[in-house]
Amino acid sequence: MTSVFVDISCSLDGYVAGADPRRDEPLGDGGMLLHEWVFGLAAWRRPHGQEGGEQGPDSDMVDAMQERHGAVVMGKGMFGGEPGPWGDDPWRGWWGDDPPFNEPVFVLTSHEREPLELGGTTFAFVTDGIESALDQARNAAAGKDVLVAGGASAIQQALRAGAVDDLTLHVVPLLLGGGVRLFGDQRLQLELTGMRASPTGVCHLSYKRV
Amino acid sequence: MTSVFVDISCSLDGYVAGADPRRDEPLGDGGMLLHEWVFGLAAWRRPHGQEGGEQGPDSDMVDAMQERHGAVVMGKGMFGGEPGPWGDDPWRGWWGDDPPFNEPVFVLTSHEREPLELGGTTFAFVTDGIESALDQARNAAAGKDVLVAGGASAIQQALRAGAVDDLTLHVVPLLLGGGVRLFGDQRLQLELTGMRASPTGVCHLSYKRV
Repeated sequence: MTSVFVDISCSLDGYVAGADPRRDEPLGDGGMLLHEWVFGLAAWRRPHGQEGGEQGPDSDMVDAMQERHGAVVMGKGMFGGEPGPWGDDPWRGWWGDDPPFNEPVFVLTSHEREPLELGGTTFAFVTDGIESALDQARNAAAGKDVLVAGGASAIQQALRAGAVDDLTLHVVPLLLGGGVRLFGDQRLQLELTGMRASPTGVCHLSYKRV
Repeated sequence: MTSVFVDISCSLDGYVAGADPRRDEPLGDGGMLLHEWVFGLAAWRRPHGQEGGEQGPDSDMVDAMQERHGAVVMGKGMFGGEPGPWGDDPWRGWWGDDPPFNEPVFVLTSHEREPLELGGTTFAFVTDGIESALDQARNAAAGKDVLVAGGASAIQQALRAGAVDDLTLHVVPLLLGGGVRLFGDQRLQLELTGMRASPTGVCHLSYKRV
């Protein structure tokens, strides 16, 4: 059965982006520090068109995660659209003409828009909420799982819908002191299913729904 | 040299107490769930005058932590004093006539009060701030280390003063969804020094200041 999962980096104080996210610094102040552990990995470099990179347990973990999902759900903020209607020259995402997904991506938004095909990636824009986006993603995933990639609001909506089967946090040894918090006001019991420390000091913690 | 350290349980979403802490539920809604992993341990039961309990790595860890410190700093909220002056029948702490500390405890407060001796524990009340409390605790620790026990505000003050040498979090697999957050608005780089999962699903993460 198709699972829905979350896999995201956060600071030890629970932020997935720093304060003041903006067009030239979409992850806000210090937010890029949450992802430094991943940029050097072979598993990250390959889908981004770069050669080489580090092999090892972290790269294998990222490879397995990428292999696992057949569709992605994300919020409009992560896609990078401005608030308001899409306009005449609509935003095409942060990733240029060949986004690294190569699978269907469902973007939560309140503004309708025709699907956008870029390289092997199709962005579909979903205006009727998280449950609809997850249903469409499950159907599109071709037997694989669905990744709720972010941001925090999309993840919180999926958690609140009771739709998240498991969740992996990559906890970066850093207090950001402010920004976008991963979790909202939901109370939830989880079960630890795995943990591993990376030489970078990042703790990879995996949980499933009880 | 005497180190200052923090050792505290928190939820996966970063709370050390639930919402609405009150006299009959001092840890707020659901806050006691953060400490269930410790109540059954031999290392917790012994200083609380109870026999038996579970032996093993968690109990050994708590034993080593207790053995490590020779003085404690805590906030007035953790001691349990009401806001405002102490009054004619001043609060004597949550722990009855024989508190489990058996060492000097320094309570941060804005209201002066004579020291209180209960069993082997002396509570001293410090009105001139965290740095003074830490200095007094260092002097009283007899060569051992100083534990900043909580609550969140006392820990944040110690972090902000740059006084915390290392920090262990016991991350409970639970989203509380609200309450008292451990960390404040401070930005800080840390270094992971240890991690271990307990069979209870609690992750013990240790960090030191970079």
